[in-house]
Formats: sequence, C-alpha cells, structure tokens
Amino acid sequence: MRAVCVIGLGLIGGSVLRAAVRAGRAAWGATSSTSDGAAAAAAGFAVLSTEDALARAAEEDALVVVAVPLPAVEGVLRSVADVAPLCRLTDVVSVKQPVADLVARVVPTARYAGGHPMAGKSVSGWPAGSAELFDGAPWVAVADEETSLDAWREAAELALDCGAHVVPTTASEHDAAVARVSHLPHILAAVLAATGAGGGPLALSLAAGSFTDGTRVAGTPADSVLAMCEGNRGPLLDAVDDALGRLGAARGALASTGGLAATVRAGNAGRAALTAVRSGDGREEVHIDLTDPEAVDDLRSLGAGGGRILRFDGDVAIGDLPG
Amino acid sequence: MRAVCVIGLGLIGGSVLRAAVRAGRAAWGATSSTSDGAAAAAAGFAVLSTEDALARAAEEDALVVVAVPLPAVEGVLRSVADVAPLCRLTDVVSVKQPVADLVARVVPTARYAGGHPMAGKSVSGWPAGSAELFDGAPWVAVADEETSLDAWREAAELALDCGAHVVPTTASEHDAAVARVSHLPHILAAVLAATGAGGGPLALSLAAGSFTDGTRVAGTPADSVLAMCEGNRGPLLDAVDDALGRLGAARGALASTGGLAATVRAGNAGRAALTAVRSGDGREEVHIDLTDPEAVDDLRSLGAGGGRILRFDGDVAIGDLPG
Repeated sequence: MRAVCVIGLGLIGGSVLRAAVRAGRAAWGATSSTSDGAAAAAAGFAVLSTEDALARAAEEDALVVVAVPLPAVEGVLRSVADVAPLCRLTDVVSVKQPVADLVARVVPTARYAGGHPMAGKSVSGWPAGSAELFDGAPWVAVADEETSLDAWREAAELALDCGAHVVPTTASEHDAAVARVSHLPHILAAVLAATGAGGGPLALSLAAGSFTDGTRVAGTPADSVLAMCEGNRGPLLDAVDDALGRLGAARGALASTGGLAATVRAGNAGRAALTAVRSGDGREEVHIDLTDPEAVDDLRSLGAGGGRILRFDGDVAIGDLPG
Repeated sequence: MRAVCVIGLGLIGGSVLRAAVRAGRAAWGATSSTSDGAAAAAAGFAVLSTEDALARAAEEDALVVVAVPLPAVEGVLRSVADVAPLCRLTDVVSVKQPVADLVARVVPTARYAGGHPMAGKSVSGWPAGSAELFDGAPWVAVADEETSLDAWREAAELALDCGAHVVPTTASEHDAAVARVSHLPHILAAVLAATGAGGGPLALSLAAGSFTDGTRVAGTPADSVLAMCEGNRGPLLDAVDDALGRLGAARGALASTGGLAATVRAGNAGRAALTAVRSGDGREEVHIDLTDPEAVDDLRSLGAGGGRILRFDGDVAIGDLPG
C-alpha cells in the first residue's frame, strides 16, 4: 500500500492521516500549527517538519496530500517544488480549478490529481477530526484533460481507503457543482437568518422548523464560510445569479398574478431529484476498464450522471449509477 | 370551562378538538370532509353537521373555532352569521388580517379574536393530528384595536389549554412576522432545491448537510405551501423584497470586491438572535393586569419583545420576556 504524507493537520488533514493509518498505510504528517502538531504527536502519529515530511515522501514514493486552506496552498507547493518535485500529489481543498492552476504553475512536474472529500463540520482543528469522518461520503477525484489515469487512481484509492466513494469529474464541473449545493446554501441561509431577524424578536419568537432548518448553517463561523465561498468566486456568482433569477421570478409572479405554483413545484421537483440520486433502488452497476483509451471519458460520464466508483478490481473500476 | 365547537377537522382543527377534550372541556366538531368526519366519530368524538354544531355553540355559549383553509373561511362565517351571530369566535388560520377583514364584513356581531398556533406537519387530515401537537409551541392570540380583552382571553385560554404558550400581537404584525419566518423559508427552500437540481445529477450527488437541511421544506406538498404563501401576499412580497435586496447585495459584493463578509456576518448575527430569543437564560417574568386600561398595549409590547403569556391568575396574565 502506498505511504501517505499529509501536509496540514486540521479537521480534514487530521482525519485523512487517521483514516490512512486505519487502512493500514504508513502515514506521517506536517503542520504549521503547533497545537495541531502537538495534539497529533500526542495521539501517537508521526509529525515531522514540512521539509522532512516531503523529503521522506520523495524517498518512499509516497502520496503527498495538501490539506491546508486555499490561501496557504501556494506556499506548500513551493516546498514540494523544492524538496519533492516529482512526487505523487493530491489535495483535499474545497475548490479544484484554483489549486490545479497553482500546481501547473508552481510544481508542474508533480504527478497530480485533485481531490475533495464532501464531509465537514462547523468546528476545525485536529481535535475535531476522526478516522471515520469520510465513511460513506462522496470524495471527488479530478479527471481533467491533463490528469494521468495513474495519478487519478492514487487519489481515488486514498478516498476508498478513507471509507468514501469516489466521484470522478473535472475541476471546473466540480467547482460549478459545489457552488450550487455547498456554497449557495450558506449564502441563502445567511440571507434568511438576516431577513428573519429583521422582523425583530416577535418574528423570531414565532419561528418554527422551516426557519430553524433553513438557517442552521448560518451559525457556521464566518471565517470558514468566507474561505470556502470567496475561493470559488466565478462559479458561485453563476449560482447566485441563478438563484436571484428564480427568486425574482417568484417576486414577479406574486406581485402580478399572486401565484407561486411555478416556484413551489420547481422546488418539489428539485427535492425529488435529490431523493432519486440518493436512492439505493434500481442502481445500475458500472465497470470501467482503465486500460481503455476512453477510460477518462467514461469516468467523467459516470460522475456527470450522479454515479460513483466503489472499488477497483485489477485495472477495472467498479461503481454504480442512480436508477 | 368554556365548551369548544371546532369547524374543520383536518390536522389543526382535529388536533384542537383532541387537545380541548384532553384539557377536560366539552367539545364537538363539524367538517365538510366525510373521511375526516368519519375518522373523528370512529375515535369517539362528537361530530355534527355545521349547522347543528353552531346551534349547539349558541345554546351553550361555546367558543367557536374556525379551522378551515382560508378560501373556505367566508362560507363558514356565513353559517356562523345565520346560526350563531353573537357567538364567541376564534380561528386557527395561518394569516390573520384577511380573516379579521372577513369577520368584520360577514359576522361583525361575533365576539372575535384571531389565533394561530405555530405548529404543523407536512401531512394533513384528521389522522395526522394529535392532542400533543401544540405542546410547547407558540400560539398567536390577536389583540387589535377592535379586539375586546374578553374575546382575546377566550382565544388565549384555549391556546394554554392546548399546551401552547400565547404570543399577543396585532393581525398585521403577525402577518409580517410569519411572512419572514414561515413563508419566506418555503420560497428560499424551493429556490435552493431548483438551483441545486439545475446542476444536474453530479451536483446532487455531492450535496451534503447544508443542502439537505436548506431544502427540507421544499418537499412539502405544493397545495399547502401555496395556500399559506399566496394567502399572505402583501407581507410576503415585503419579505421577498428584503431577501432579494440582501441576495443582490451579496451578488454585488462578490462581483466587485469578491468579499462576502457583510452577508455572512449578518447571517451569524441573525442566527445568534434566534438562539437568544429561544434561550431560557435570564428571562424576565412579566405580570399584566388585564383590568388596567393599558392592558392591550402591554400585551402587544410583550409580543413585540419576543415575550409570551404562560398562565392566568385571576385578572393577571403572567408570562416572560427573553433576557
């Protein structure tokens, strides 16, 4: 099994280190946070300096996992370029095109495929992590034009070993998708919380489940929401514009005919589509031969259809698609 | 204890009938739904024709509770005007000004104060109801200029007997508040569900908790959402305009400086205000003497401050305010 070198030991990186060890892999980490580093070392994990960790990765042909916030990625990649420029490389940052652009600029010789586990919490740091964080979660492994299948498979095998299933897609399709289902929900929750509070204590005292659920993620610490949303500016603008158009149409319908049927029925249909993608009923098993020249296209089509990879059997990736 | 006559035996009316009986009151009902009527009768409740139910209410000086959807309210009020024009009257419809206007037009002689229990479910009909539905929930009892304190107290006593606490406010303030915390959440959930589904199966396959929570009420059957939202058109337009302004400001900030701090921090503050209104810490006990000429103003101020009435002691209403 491939050894793993995790740079950044916060919630996500710390959980990757634990999950890699749980899977039986040799694994070590590095972090610029003295508190995260001390906590990881105290829990029995190998914590080195970033340079020593990367040097060991180069020596042992390990997979390097960049697990720092987007603003810190460039600095880590400069260290990679200095110490382990030919390494196998992935990351777990919440946007993919900006990281791919940085890798292409700073350390183009690395054998890179991006990743993104769709799991999180509203708390951060090593103590918040666990080996089980990714169990059953989707984990994007990026298959772009320039991605080698070998690098993609390294990222995908790590995801499976961490208990996740793999969703293959491109960096730009990933960023557009998470803008809609992960970043826009935070913006709308903030808008709803502020509009509700604008009604004063009376309105808040009458709030029931619809308001409580709709504003839950508005309680997430601002810094982590800002890092996530502001780092995905272009795709998030598209998603916000789509939502603005739909909300404006509802406003217009309410003001003119008074009817909201189109808005409410589109919401019903969207929620039904979510249930259908998640359903276990009638899912179709899919086999993709990774030696086939069309393999990358097949992987992307699988992801675009809401499908996932569940395991590898030799050179065959085995997964399923919604029914 | 005052007897109760409930017209309409769906989720809310059926629960009021059960809760009134649980409280030890004499109670009977009527419904235009043969299935709800048969189910209530089979469960041992007294079910009469609407005319007989209202005639008995006139005879026994009972409190009549209108528990039908807004479009059916006028027809019920015509029966009240025919059979029991001087009765004590309240309602449990989700908007208050339109019902007050109908009462003033159709049966101005009734001793009326409007009500609205803030409890519900995404399923309807007698079988979905229960005596416990209102336990611990807010229940608005309307105290407008034209409301007599005697009528207000009848509505409030029913709410307390049903296990709820009482929030006194005006019809128009109620309608503005529920537009923000009950109707707008349904519109935004529908917009989010449709925008997410617009990202196709890939986006939905990557959706996690923020999207699941933010779209939960988009799964509510369209008919009940439409009845609720379209019946509160003016106040809902104001709430949608407020949300549109906030979402447009977020859009502008993202497009210009790329910064979302104002949006996200306003959301944090709104959610913190919700937690504060709900907190049991530092609440201040309030006594309102109902024989005081300022009593109606005091009740409305209590509601405007996020406060509630918890019980009566003679002519004193006892409640509390958030700390």
